Amino acid sequence: MKAEIITIGDELLIGQVIDTNSAWMARELNMVGIQVTQITSIADNHEHIVKALLDASIRADIIITTGGLGPTRDDITKLALCDFFKTHLIFHQQSFENIERIFTLRGYALTELNRKQAEVPATCEALLNENGTAPGMWFRFNGKIFISLPGVPFEMKALMTNHVLPIIKPMSNMVIIHKTILTQGVGESFLADKIKDWESALPPHIKLAYLPQPGIVRLRLSTSGISAETLHHELDEKITLLYSTISEYIFGEDEESLESVVGQLLREHNLSLSTAESCTGGYISHLITSIAGSSTYFAGSIISYSNEVKISALGVKRTTIEDFGSVSKEVVIEMAEGVKKKLNTNCSIAVSGIAGPDGGTDDKPVGTVWIAVSTPYTGTITKRFLFGEHRERNIRRSALAALDLLRKQLIISEKSII
Amino acid sequence: MKAEIITIGDELLIGQVIDTNSAWMARELNMVGIQVTQITSIADNHEHIVKALLDASIRADIIITTGGLGPTRDDITKLALCDFFKTHLIFHQQSFENIERIFTLRGYALTELNRKQAEVPATCEALLNENGTAPGMWFRFNGKIFISLPGVPFEMKALMTNHVLPIIKPMSNMVIIHKTILTQGVGESFLADKIKDWESALPPHIKLAYLPQPGIVRLRLSTSGISAETLHHELDEKITLLYSTISEYIFGEDEESLESVVGQLLREHNLSLSTAESCTGGYISHLITSIAGSSTYFAGSIISYSNEVKISALGVKRTTIEDFGSVSKEVVIEMAEGVKKKLNTNCSIAVSGIAGPDGGTDDKPVGTVWIAVSTPYTGTITKRFLFGEHRERNIRRSALAALDLLRKQLIISEKSII
Repeated sequence: MKAEIITIGDELLIGQVIDTNSAWMARELNMVGIQVTQITSIADNHEHIVKALLDASIRADIIITTGGLGPTRDDITKLALCDFFKTHLIFHQQSFENIERIFTLRGYALTELNRKQAEVPATCEALLNENGTAPGMWFRFNGKIFISLPGVPFEMKALMTNHVLPIIKPMSNMVIIHKTILTQGVGESFLADKIKDWESALPPHIKLAYLPQPGIVRLRLSTSGISAETLHHELDEKITLLYSTISEYIFGEDEESLESVVGQLLREHNLSLSTAESCTGGYISHLITSIAGSSTYFAGSIISYSNEVKISALGVKRTTIEDFGSVSKEVVIEMAEGVKKKLNTNCSIAVSGIAGPDGGTDDKPVGTVWIAVSTPYTGTITKRFLFGEHRERNIRRSALAALDLLRKQLIISEKSII
Repeated sequence: MKAEIITIGDELLIGQVIDTNSAWMARELNMVGIQVTQITSIADNHEHIVKALLDASIRADIIITTGGLGPTRDDITKLALCDFFKTHLIFHQQSFENIERIFTLRGYALTELNRKQAEVPATCEALLNENGTAPGMWFRFNGKIFISLPGVPFEMKALMTNHVLPIIKPMSNMVIIHKTILTQGVGESFLADKIKDWESALPPHIKLAYLPQPGIVRLRLSTSGISAETLHHELDEKITLLYSTISEYIFGEDEESLESVVGQLLREHNLSLSTAESCTGGYISHLITSIAGSSTYFAGSIISYSNEVKISALGVKRTTIEDFGSVSKEVVIEMAEGVKKKLNTNCSIAVSGIAGPDGGTDDKPVGTVWIAVSTPYTGTITKRFLFGEHRERNIRRSALAALDLLRKQLIISEKSII
């Protein structure tokens, strides 16, 4: 079973909105054994929508569109669907009741535009959108399945999860398995060189992909067949070998993140954490608190963007800043120990660096970052990094490097390298 | 001049990576008057790459591909290009020298894989990639232009900016103008109802789109023609009218963000800011410090995730938390005033809420958020919000609502509503 996704909206073609829907849908479809072979983004243009539906229906068995179902005039997907399926719009009572329910819930008055959202092509089965006013639509036409969903990610996801996936899952007998190994602090080609023998020994039906991001390279293994058990068994063997080759760079698997892995370790060790951040400006704290339940191990942070705050709120000595500069080993040690004491935690992270674009010197160019990590096991350790010239990337890479440094101290304490 | 973008990579089709390249490229192409009519994502599959190139070349004048140029075996775009253009790979000395330069800079040893990256199809003009080892490629074939760029966003962007856009800009005589008005704290259909008369009076060549995000609705106006001056003049008139209709919801335009607008206001008023964050966990601080130069007005934050930190680091009274709960008007007032005093700033933001998924009660359900904002003009004011059930969205909406509340206090002080 092959599927294609068509995302509709002028905003995608002028680059105002990044299409995040397709990636989410593709992942979900893959998990139920349906391969996505193409994703197409087109404008809110009647002829182009009809043409894209036609082209996709030649190549794929299932065609899913998102977007163009809003209450406003720029949304024309329903009319294009009527044209493609040679049908017309009818008023759908249940959809209208759902719209009324949502407006009552939010305390808004119903407008005429919202009433029109209850109209759907006569040949479709309307799918109830619990989270919004645009109903989903399901069509069967020339032996193919067509599904039209709203472009609001939150609404699309609920419709996929509750209405679409449960019906299409039984249609595929193919199992597709992906496993992703997450590495930090090492470049793509260096990694490829390290694992080249292991890679050469992979059978042809196991595909390997390198997926680099700032500070992280993900290694994705994909395999497909009929028996999930056989596929898993074979993949697990290969992954065990991979761990024995590059264990020092691996921090997690699949949907894990450094912040979730560190959170899990802190929880297991019954430890508490605080952060003292200068150049990362709260980003480490944000990553940590993006994990639900982080309040059990995370106490808080002192974001000391100015030197005065480093002195007054963290207890860094003025002379330390004067003698060594605020981006220095000595200052991050005092920051890490200061925040641990002030916020009464067992562990802490401290970061001070030059994120850029300004503030660099010959001695300490933009991208220079000092990180300190303090744990009960290894005391306060520090590391200096030299990242690049780009502010956003420097902030992200600093935060990941800091979390990985903490992770390693917590693992050392377990006296095992996974 | 019409362009199409083809992004290549298995990771896109299994949903492991979100395609951010296309949006960036589409925006840049639009700005030089080139309309992007389709974006297509396909797998690292030889036949599919060749077919996608062929299809796109029928519809568009310029075809730009990204991805599949890495040093590893899963990257096959160059071989597919050779097939499509009926040519073969040759070693390109200048590209090889660039690869050597980059490896020397990073202190890495050159691998055989990297040497192969210096090979390009014989009929192309190689484009120097200053930031990476994969050269860009430029082809002319059957009267069309084909450009192949690496998928790493950072490398692709530099190649587009330095090599591609300067050459294709003079090819278009069409001017496309987009103007986006940014609103906060109001729903899409409510907004559409408010501006329906204004919208009806727009001439047919000015298109309006509603682009909702959590907490923000962007209104994009697009127009095209030959004279930039005429188009700008007409658009400006419409936008002046729009401001007079919904000024209370508008916080900025185009690429502005709440954090950049607030930063600009603080700078103009010569004020300093600190934040005290509970449920937002440092996200407000991260947004503020994502703006280069924010150190001139931002002192830092105290992220008080635990009640103990609210008491010890912010000076919130234990009895206030016991009497009113940590998510309360009384607590956010003490947080805002506490952080202002501790970090010695004129302004502050404080947030305490229940981000979820757990922690809600009948009285204070998940999504309940109290925000306090303190300025020299309007003192410390508070507002209660009830967002939804989704942690990530609650964090984001809380941060935006807090920044907008501060923005409004700073504007009130100017005694003018824009």
